[in-house]
Amino acid sequence: VDMKRLQRQIEFLIECERLKTVLRQNSLIHEARRENSAEHSWQLALMAMVLGEHANEKIDSAHVIKMVLIHDLVEVYCGDVFVYDVAAREQKKEHEEAAAQKLFALLPEDQRGEFHDLWREFEEQRTIEARFAAALDRLAPMIANSKNSGGTWRQHNITEDRVRSRTKSIQDGSKNLWQYADQLICEAVRQGNLKSLDSR
Amino acid sequence: VDMKRLQRQIEFLIECERLKTVLRQNSLIHEARRENSAEHSWQLALMAMVLGEHANEKIDSAHVIKMVLIHDLVEVYCGDVFVYDVAAREQKKEHEEAAAQKLFALLPEDQRGEFHDLWREFEEQRTIEARFAAALDRLAPMIANSKNSGGTWRQHNITEDRVRSRTKSIQDGSKNLWQYADQLICEAVRQGNLKSLDSR
Repeated sequence: VDMKRLQRQIEFLIECERLKTVLRQNSLIHEARRENSAEHSWQLALMAMVLGEHANEKIDSAHVIKMVLIHDLVEVYCGDVFVYDVAAREQKKEHEEAAAQKLFALLPEDQRGEFHDLWREFEEQRTIEARFAAALDRLAPMIANSKNSGGTWRQHNITEDRVRSRTKSIQDGSKNLWQYADQLICEAVRQGNLKSLDSR
Repeated sequence: VDMKRLQRQIEFLIECERLKTVLRQNSLIHEARRENSAEHSWQLALMAMVLGEHANEKIDSAHVIKMVLIHDLVEVYCGDVFVYDVAAREQKKEHEEAAAQKLFALLPEDQRGEFHDLWREFEEQRTIEARFAAALDRLAPMIANSKNSGGTWRQHNITEDRVRSRTKSIQDGSKNLWQYADQLICEAVRQGNLKSLDSR
């Protein structure tokens, strides 16, 4: 066994472990603390295992699983950007490409391409697998918010129109999941957990 | 779309989210808090993606990934049992089988089998994929302990012989990873982070 190669792979994994310390905006459903990006990634992978049949086209679910497992890895250098933070999102792309270069360079040369390609596939949204993965990524915090009396929608005074414009792309991956997401939005509005007009 | 079916799948996922609240004994490498079983499962899946080449036989790495993603799910009802807690481990099997029955029953009938079989495959350790998954499960906390000045080995006064007897099965999944694990053990003993004689 090439112990230098194995050592290198383990160093990459140790760096990736920082994802457990990156906090997202939304809270957990069953505990009053913010979610971290590692447990979020696990949840998306489990969603891919359970919900794969709802994709608009037949998907390679193993490919979706791998994509969601690594889609947030660059946050170990960049942190998480809140989906409604418009200013921060503008600089995001550049920073994240640099972070991907730096992080995947820790891997042995013959493995870098696979990881970088998978990460880029998610970013570019050109395949059905990438669009389905993004649909799961959009849907997960909506479920948390709907179980948490509005959660980040309420905290940040996000209105229905903004939620719809940020989440409607769910239908590009799954019309079924969008139908479900639409129900969550309507319910949240009805319950007063999401404002239907901009009241800032 | 059958919204009742989709609703059912989402309820299963919401119950599974409890895994984010189940604490393991070991701490993180980059933060002074205990690891939860959801982020641990994510890490094993990432390890499966990176380290698959080190399995003793050619493996279906997507299968290993799915297995580690769900291997701890029963803990949402049973909690995590520390690997060196001998008394608790005796009752573990029975409790976990009951938990698996209860949890997977939340899924639509045609999906239960797939999840239950995958969980049981890990438990039974009869396939190379299951043995490789278990090797990753054993190795991960060893890496954390070795980066945390002994971690749980030191806290619970675990000795080298006990570590070896609980982790030597790594070689059934991967001789390469066992060679690496053996180095970690020797290093920890050398650095005084792991006692080589039982000093309780």
